[in-house]
Amino acid sequence: KWKGAPETTADGGWSFKPRGRIHIDAGAVSEPGALESRNLGFATRVRRVRLGMEGTIPGNLGYKVEADFANSGVAFGDVWLTYNPANAPIVVRVGNFESLNSMEQISSSNNVTFIERNSFNDAFINARRLGAAVAWHNKSNDFFVEAGLFAGHAIDSSLDNDGWIGATRIHFTPKIGDTQLHLGATYQYRDFTSNNAGATSASLLSPSTNQLARYRARPGSQLTDIRFVDTGSFAAKSDQIIGLEAAAIFKQFYISGEAQWLKTNAYKAGDVATGLDAFSGGNIAVVPTENPGFFGAYAEIGTFLTGETRGYNNKLGVWSRPKIKNPVTKGGLGAFQIAARFDYLDLDDDALKNGVTNNFATGTSTLAALNSRLGRGGTQTSYLLGLNWYPIDYLRFMVNYGRVNVEGGPLAATVDPLSTVPVDERDYSVDVLAARMQIEF
Amino acid sequence: KWKGAPETTADGGWSFKPRGRIHIDAGAVSEPGALESRNLGFATRVRRVRLGMEGTIPGNLGYKVEADFANSGVAFGDVWLTYNPANAPIVVRVGNFESLNSMEQISSSNNVTFIERNSFNDAFINARRLGAAVAWHNKSNDFFVEAGLFAGHAIDSSLDNDGWIGATRIHFTPKIGDTQLHLGATYQYRDFTSNNAGATSASLLSPSTNQLARYRARPGSQLTDIRFVDTGSFAAKSDQIIGLEAAAIFKQFYISGEAQWLKTNAYKAGDVATGLDAFSGGNIAVVPTENPGFFGAYAEIGTFLTGETRGYNNKLGVWSRPKIKNPVTKGGLGAFQIAARFDYLDLDDDALKNGVTNNFATGTSTLAALNSRLGRGGTQTSYLLGLNWYPIDYLRFMVNYGRVNVEGGPLAATVDPLSTVPVDERDYSVDVLAARMQIEF
Amino acid sequence: KWKGAPETTADGGWSFKPRGRIHIDAGAVSEPGALESRNLGFATRVRRVRLGMEGTIPGNLGYKVEADFANSGVAFGDVWLTYNPANAPIVVRVGNFESLNSMEQISSSNNVTFIERNSFNDAFINARRLGAAVAWHNKSNDFFVEAGLFAGHAIDSSLDNDGWIGATRIHFTPKIGDTQLHLGATYQYRDFTSNNAGATSASLLSPSTNQLARYRARPGSQLTDIRFVDTGSFAAKSDQIIGLEAAAIFKQFYISGEAQWLKTNAYKAGDVATGLDAFSGGNIAVVPTENPGFFGAYAEIGTFLTGETRGYNNKLGVWSRPKIKNPVTKGGLGAFQIAARFDYLDLDDDALKNGVTNNFATGTSTLAALNSRLGRGGTQTSYLLGLNWYPIDYLRFMVNYGRVNVEGGPLAATVDPLSTVPVDERDYSVDVLAARMQIEF
Repeated sequence: KWKGAPETTADGGWSFKPRGRIHIDAGAVSEPGALESRNLGFATRVRRVRLGMEGTIPGNLGYKVEADFANSGVAFGDVWLTYNPANAPIVVRVGNFESLNSMEQISSSNNVTFIERNSFNDAFINARRLGAAVAWHNKSNDFFVEAGLFAGHAIDSSLDNDGWIGATRIHFTPKIGDTQLHLGATYQYRDFTSNNAGATSASLLSPSTNQLARYRARPGSQLTDIRFVDTGSFAAKSDQIIGLEAAAIFKQFYISGEAQWLKTNAYKAGDVATGLDAFSGGNIAVVPTENPGFFGAYAEIGTFLTGETRGYNNKLGVWSRPKIKNPVTKGGLGAFQIAARFDYLDLDDDALKNGVTNNFATGTSTLAALNSRLGRGGTQTSYLLGLNWYPIDYLRFMVNYGRVNVEGGPLAATVDPLSTVPVDERDYSVDVLAARMQIEF
Repeated sequence: KWKGAPETTADGGWSFKPRGRIHIDAGAVSEPGALESRNLGFATRVRRVRLGMEGTIPGNLGYKVEADFANSGVAFGDVWLTYNPANAPIVVRVGNFESLNSMEQISSSNNVTFIERNSFNDAFINARRLGAAVAWHNKSNDFFVEAGLFAGHAIDSSLDNDGWIGATRIHFTPKIGDTQLHLGATYQYRDFTSNNAGATSASLLSPSTNQLARYRARPGSQLTDIRFVDTGSFAAKSDQIIGLEAAAIFKQFYISGEAQWLKTNAYKAGDVATGLDAFSGGNIAVVPTENPGFFGAYAEIGTFLTGETRGYNNKLGVWSRPKIKNPVTKGGLGAFQIAARFDYLDLDDDALKNGVTNNFATGTSTLAALNSRLGRGGTQTSYLLGLNWYPIDYLRFMVNYGRVNVEGGPLAATVDPLSTVPVDERDYSVDVLAARMQIEF
Repeated sequence: KWKGAPETTADGGWSFKPRGRIHIDAGAVSEPGALESRNLGFATRVRRVRLGMEGTIPGNLGYKVEADFANSGVAFGDVWLTYNPANAPIVVRVGNFESLNSMEQISSSNNVTFIERNSFNDAFINARRLGAAVAWHNKSNDFFVEAGLFAGHAIDSSLDNDGWIGATRIHFTPKIGDTQLHLGATYQYRDFTSNNAGATSASLLSPSTNQLARYRARPGSQLTDIRFVDTGSFAAKSDQIIGLEAAAIFKQFYISGEAQWLKTNAYKAGDVATGLDAFSGGNIAVVPTENPGFFGAYAEIGTFLTGETRGYNNKLGVWSRPKIKNPVTKGGLGAFQIAARFDYLDLDDDALKNGVTNNFATGTSTLAALNSRLGRGGTQTSYLLGLNWYPIDYLRFMVNYGRVNVEGGPLAATVDPLSTVPVDERDYSVDVLAARMQIEF
């Protein structure tokens, strides 16, 4: 059986299939105002080069391993063992996978509409972690609830495992007439890795560096390393995220949207941390005046001009590959998809802008310079247009244009140095144009 | 043909099979006495993620490549070409493989009883190296002798290749009635890489860093990076290891044990090393009063409660995969194995504890503080219990409990700071509880 | 269908094949004169461990991914998507591949005659880059012209993409009677990545580190890290390379040769570069007196003693795998190939030896010490002999001997410290003996 690559099967429940994906990007991010950086402007990058294997094992077991080599190092996609008992509507997963954190985040990067996922997934560090999850679904596969427990890090060589994540996701996905609905909600509690006498954590993809939280987001493109919105590091013990998901698919049309609220459990001015509890970087860190909260959301609308329906897995509540009606191999044009998205990210919180710099050795505080404080956080509002061409299943060419409006943030003072408006009210725009070539097998 | 993954064959002697293994661990190592460390306590870790390929080539040739990505970098399992002439009982191997160093070390990590191998393999740095070996076996495949020559390092980018290893292993594996016997012996001579004007070696898995030897071992778990027994670095030119192996398998019961004696050829007080021979770290290093010797051994007893026989390859003299009698896929319970092990490691030597710190530029010596000297080495005695469940071939769940008694070593003074007993006689215990999920294909 | 590994095909144009290669090297590079280095002498090294996949996709598409793990990190071979329209003699490639830079460089490392490619490919940093190329060929597949545009770097995590390469290659490959001819020409323009306020570039395989060019070559072996010829870094904006290729294959005999001329567009004394344009390393760099030029060439003659013809792909103008007539699996001896090569590399240019050290902050210049200036560059003349044995297709054992004569260069003063001849006229010789075991599938 061919699924981009040959799937081999054998008696008793064995199967095996090589897996791979290549995502090659090129594009440009404009330089706003007076900001100059080699990290803006034109860039090309191989975003993902994944090779792996998946299969099933007798006894209703499945496995998947996918290593990503795109950054000249080794990262991982899903690495898991799953168990689906024959006579119970249960799914158990153990390994390295998304911490039940957002419909778009959990969907494969092969199947999301735009080149990069929405901003809150980037800002809130929704990512794969090492853990285990149990799910229950109803018989008609339109109600699914899953809960999991994760380490604070992904596959890496770190041995410090104080941090952990508890996460749950629930979704209801009825089909009403021709319309497929998706309604979901998620909750994550993330306990940060404790400090270790000022030594920096070696963990990959932690929600924080030890007890220094930081939320920031790129302008909808991984072709730059610059984040226009960025809270900077501040001392915190844990955070919580609540998320909502909604989507509707009606023939070739679909709409979808998600929102997430994050609340950080922060340290306070006057707190003292000594010995093993001392903070990295000289035991000095920013502390907000109270627990700060952040918010992100997007809404998307799209259609297949060529009549396809957007791929959707109603059991798992994730986007899947669309089935191309007239592939070029049969003399057709392939499929064309157009979509528009509004994406909003608010990393602005007065508790952080008014925060002081606390010396955790002595408990005394100082106040940073005004512009530095006002530059913490910022809001980012993006308008995105996307065109995707699928010549056949397994192949996709993408073009995205984004207009990104930024208010405040750490770079506002550099972008607009002459303004007399307070730094956190200065706004500017960035244009992002990007293209991707995507092969999967 | 299915062996966890499909094996493809073709005329003339071609075959090909993908390979992989995933080992996911979770567990805890207790904090003894007054010692505090983030590297103790609960931890989860992906111990191995291996992907590779193996096959045969016409002309009685075979190859195997296995890369390990578990630590977000690239390491290697076996990478080799083998040649078995049709008309001679000879096996030639060239590549990256274990330096004929111990029955348990040479056996696949998929097939050893406990989550980690015995302590002396860790302490004596028995590992894969780049080299070539030739073996001869008798017709009945119960006598095997192999000799090899290896570089001092594994696959890496290092180009300094002064160090080398000469190794030999012999085993006699008769079947007497229903009892499979294994008797083996090994010898290794390891010449350390010369100093390079104080520059540190880039070689992976060297038996030493240039001419600085160091032997140490974890407490039977890779869930911590802490070694309670550790000789520290001392100046040495080479070492030799003699090992003995014995095992007996009788139906579902088996016993096994190994011992290794290591003797280091050390530098002496007053030695001078200048120019390219200068030592890393300021040309100052510890020198023992005479050549120190170390020792490790273990004995194991186990049984399959479900009647299986422990897998054993009598030609190669290594453990192999057991054949599960009643897999869960046929309505059975799978296989259950229980085992107990005594593991002893003695890194204690008066020659090292009395050793001085030699300045290799001048040949003059100083004596380190008493507690620092007494903390060199230490002994570790471990009692291990293990339970393994194999639902089917290729899948294994493991639980281990270990009680580890330590006497002396570099941490004894920290663990037991108030004791009036000499540091090298202070003893304490550590508990280790660990679980593993293992998939191979 | 078996091609070293099984190739699976399916209806509509699908195919899939795992790929791999292992190159294990051992050998020695002699220590000339008074030079002592741990990086000379005997060494063993795994030169390449590649695992990957290739396949075809309906719609006349093909892909290839090959990751190289030999240096305990991740590098890449070809990673590309190709498109060959059914009704037009066009080939489009997008991905990571050789920048159309030399017949020997573009040919697979499995199929070049000697263990390492010629010196100018090493010195001029001909390598794979991220880019796109379009080729046109005639109906009889003996005329081919290709042009491509590349980023200045390969697959890596770098996001600074100012540098770029424009490249073109043309080849005419008629078969005249029994003689296969190859005539080719290449041109590359390489624009260097701009400086970034003194920050060092993170790009892999760039033709320069930001605007600091450097050309150097190993003595025909990757068993040492020492380059006897080396221009050192100097300030430059871009370079151009013109290359010529010629080969003829007549039955078991063949001759081949290539030459490349490189011209660097350098900065001049008195130039000022401030702010983002400042140079790495304190804004101080060597500047030649005028644009320096370098040259390299080789000529090779060889034959198959066992009557095979050297593999050649006349459409793509590259060497390919020879077809073994009497493999050992059919009772034959395999194939034996002998070859001799003359290889010349001239990195000597008075403009560089007379160059000054320019302070780009002030535009003032100083002159380095005479011996240091005279040591820039050097020439390397190598005489190589090679013997290759192919027991079967897909397997090759190689032995190379090289006599390398060096004149000048940065090590001449160390090798021959007592000479009264100017440093750039001191000459010495190095012997290189190397062997390789090569498996591909």
